[in-house]
Amino acid sequence: MRAVDIIRSKRDGQALSPAEIAWFVEGVTARAIPDYQAVALLMAITLRGMTGAETAALTSAMVASGERLDLSGLPGPSVDKHSTGGVGDKTSLVLAPLAAACGAIVPMMSGRGLGHTGGTLDKLEAIQGLRTSLTVAELRAQLARVGCAIVGQTDAIAPADRVLYALRDVTATVDSVPLIAASIMSKKLAEGVGALVLDVKTGTGAFMREEADARRLAGLMAAAGLEAGVRTEALITAMDAPLGRAVGNALEVAEAIAVLRGGGPADLVALCGDLAARMLWLAGLARDEAAAARQVQRALASGAALERFAAMIEAQGGDPRVVDRPETLPAAPGRDTIVAPRSGYLARVEATAAGTAAVLLGAGRNRAGDAVDPAVGLELLALPGEAVAAGQPLLVLHYRDEASRERARAALAAGISVADVPPAPVRLVRHRLP
Amino acid sequence: MRAVDIIRSKRDGQALSPAEIAWFVEGVTARAIPDYQAVALLMAITLRGMTGAETAALTSAMVASGERLDLSGLPGPSVDKHSTGGVGDKTSLVLAPLAAACGAIVPMMSGRGLGHTGGTLDKLEAIQGLRTSLTVAELRAQLARVGCAIVGQTDAIAPADRVLYALRDVTATVDSVPLIAASIMSKKLAEGVGALVLDVKTGTGAFMREEADARRLAGLMAAAGLEAGVRTEALITAMDAPLGRAVGNALEVAEAIAVLRGGGPADLVALCGDLAARMLWLAGLARDEAAAARQVQRALASGAALERFAAMIEAQGGDPRVVDRPETLPAAPGRDTIVAPRSGYLARVEATAAGTAAVLLGAGRNRAGDAVDPAVGLELLALPGEAVAAGQPLLVLHYRDEASRERARAALAAGISVADVPPAPVRLVRHRLP
Repeated sequence: MRAVDIIRSKRDGQALSPAEIAWFVEGVTARAIPDYQAVALLMAITLRGMTGAETAALTSAMVASGERLDLSGLPGPSVDKHSTGGVGDKTSLVLAPLAAACGAIVPMMSGRGLGHTGGTLDKLEAIQGLRTSLTVAELRAQLARVGCAIVGQTDAIAPADRVLYALRDVTATVDSVPLIAASIMSKKLAEGVGALVLDVKTGTGAFMREEADARRLAGLMAAAGLEAGVRTEALITAMDAPLGRAVGNALEVAEAIAVLRGGGPADLVALCGDLAARMLWLAGLARDEAAAARQVQRALASGAALERFAAMIEAQGGDPRVVDRPETLPAAPGRDTIVAPRSGYLARVEATAAGTAAVLLGAGRNRAGDAVDPAVGLELLALPGEAVAAGQPLLVLHYRDEASRERARAALAAGISVADVPPAPVRLVRHRLP
Repeated sequence: MRAVDIIRSKRDGQALSPAEIAWFVEGVTARAIPDYQAVALLMAITLRGMTGAETAALTSAMVASGERLDLSGLPGPSVDKHSTGGVGDKTSLVLAPLAAACGAIVPMMSGRGLGHTGGTLDKLEAIQGLRTSLTVAELRAQLARVGCAIVGQTDAIAPADRVLYALRDVTATVDSVPLIAASIMSKKLAEGVGALVLDVKTGTGAFMREEADARRLAGLMAAAGLEAGVRTEALITAMDAPLGRAVGNALEVAEAIAVLRGGGPADLVALCGDLAARMLWLAGLARDEAAAARQVQRALASGAALERFAAMIEAQGGDPRVVDRPETLPAAPGRDTIVAPRSGYLARVEATAAGTAAVLLGAGRNRAGDAVDPAVGLELLALPGEAVAAGQPLLVLHYRDEASRERARAALAAGISVADVPPAPVRLVRHRLP
């Protein structure tokens, strides 16, 4: 085979064979195919697309470029959940211990925040001392003992994805639905799980603003998962406003603890419940949806899920007492309140504006590798749809310095609006695939 | 500016500004923009296209990446002709001295053959001792004295094109009409000529098989020339059969000499006449088409054009007596005749088959840098349309060894056919733009 012939086929809109895709990915990973040929193919894929079968083959080739976790011999069926990224989305912190408390093995490999969306590892590391960098042996041992872990990817996982992503980032080939699908799925399938629930976000705060794009992405990801023998489902969920009330690392950990204690904001609780039930059902731990929902309720009500979260924190080097005393999490020195400019209904707290404000406060990063401040962020005191009175506090900024507070207020300005009539209620879960 | 933003614009089908194009080409030439970003833009251009204005801006940026010849002070208006490549196309050898004999300055920078198409430099170098590699000072001196030169490009000409072409060659981004147009035109405009006639080939032996593609290419090239202030015209001409009777370097030099002596095959004579007349008219050396045609006829009939060819050969280090004794050109040791399989009309001598046979005989190259044999090639004894009898010789192979003879015969087999009815006559010049 020759790289130029494969590039030409895709340039001309033809579907590549699994053998061609595997050969190309192997060559790119081994650096036998130069970057400029890799990019030629990436741009051709971005403009010509890929079928479900091609996407599955690309995913599989990227998994094969590295190691795949061996979860055999662990006490339970394995399952994971992955979200395409949103604002205030701390569901992973809830779901890993919750599913583990119900008998699942959850080897959750997560990422860091970039741009206006947060990252699970950044959130979890707001807990002092907690490590997210585990060896494969440590990870297996923790899964055997605790049933769940939330860790970063090791370098051995899907190295092809790292090579390709670094190139995509600087060549305007990030925004390709099949490339996004293969990138996400290669890392998830390398976890070796038997089941996977995907939370594909759509809306103003999501990477896929249009629901049609989100559905296409969900379809390609589900196809790649099923093709690899993993029971895969995708929920398409709304991301127009932050999920829950908290945006910012320590604030989100505290909110996740609240949910694990049986409290927390309704939207977050409902989404965690839905996702957890699907995880249990796909993992074969519940015979139907109703049974799965009951197990989830029991694990929350009994404190089993919270206990599991404490055990996970302890296993990863953090102080488990934080689950009883979330006030010991890092706190920002400053508080600033944004109030309702007039009476009416809170119509909108736009997700990207809230996410951007959190980044400006220091909670996130604009460039990979930047440090984040665990303490800062924002907290919604009122939620979209609520009646508010002029001057009523809507939102609290947790800030470290004046300059960041000013910038965050400016970023939020256009994202918050009060209207005379209540907004249409939001349906959080839009679809389920397949 | 950022390369990734420019790539993204083109990926999304937007037209790039001249400033963006100039910045990108400068960065690529200085190697400040890495190859993989250059290729990302090349693939996006290949799939999204470019407007006439973008192509002109790309051409101009590529010219600006290197030196532009200064032809001021030379005794006459400057003009050149460029062909997009065909089989048996030796018009350049005729046109440079012919136009010079009519008062034009012709600083013809040519290329070498690749694949089934021949290259003017390879042909001219069949004349022993002749150099095609001149310094700029030598070139100017020769133009002042002789009026014409046929030389290779110096490294100082359009270096951006060399960088980009090397990448295009291995990333399936050669077949892009605007990129082809800018590549050709950047090298022609760097010659500093005031007028330019383009011979854009179409047909089975041409790079642009479809006439619509040839027209698009001609339109973009003419636009780039006019935008740069060069009087530019394009003829779209047929390339389904070899031009003239000879294919192969020394054989084609001999045929060009025959034309300069007032003889030669009718199709070649007619095309040379048309192209030369357009060159004179565009250069301002004739007040109308009829006057231009008369000047061309006079220069051929008087021997002035042939003398000019001899002077050019001598100036470039060759023996000018070759124009009187073409039999002193290198000759191949072997001759092999292909005969008509039956009586009828010679329906077809397909150009790519003939060009490929010539390459197999050693007259051309499949890879840049390969050596060529000046002596070998093929000669058509009958031309398409002629009545032929069974067993009548149609074509002579001039070969060096048996193996190449066999391969060449095999390559020709499907390209030659005899039919019961004469083929439709070929109209060589299909269109003129603008």
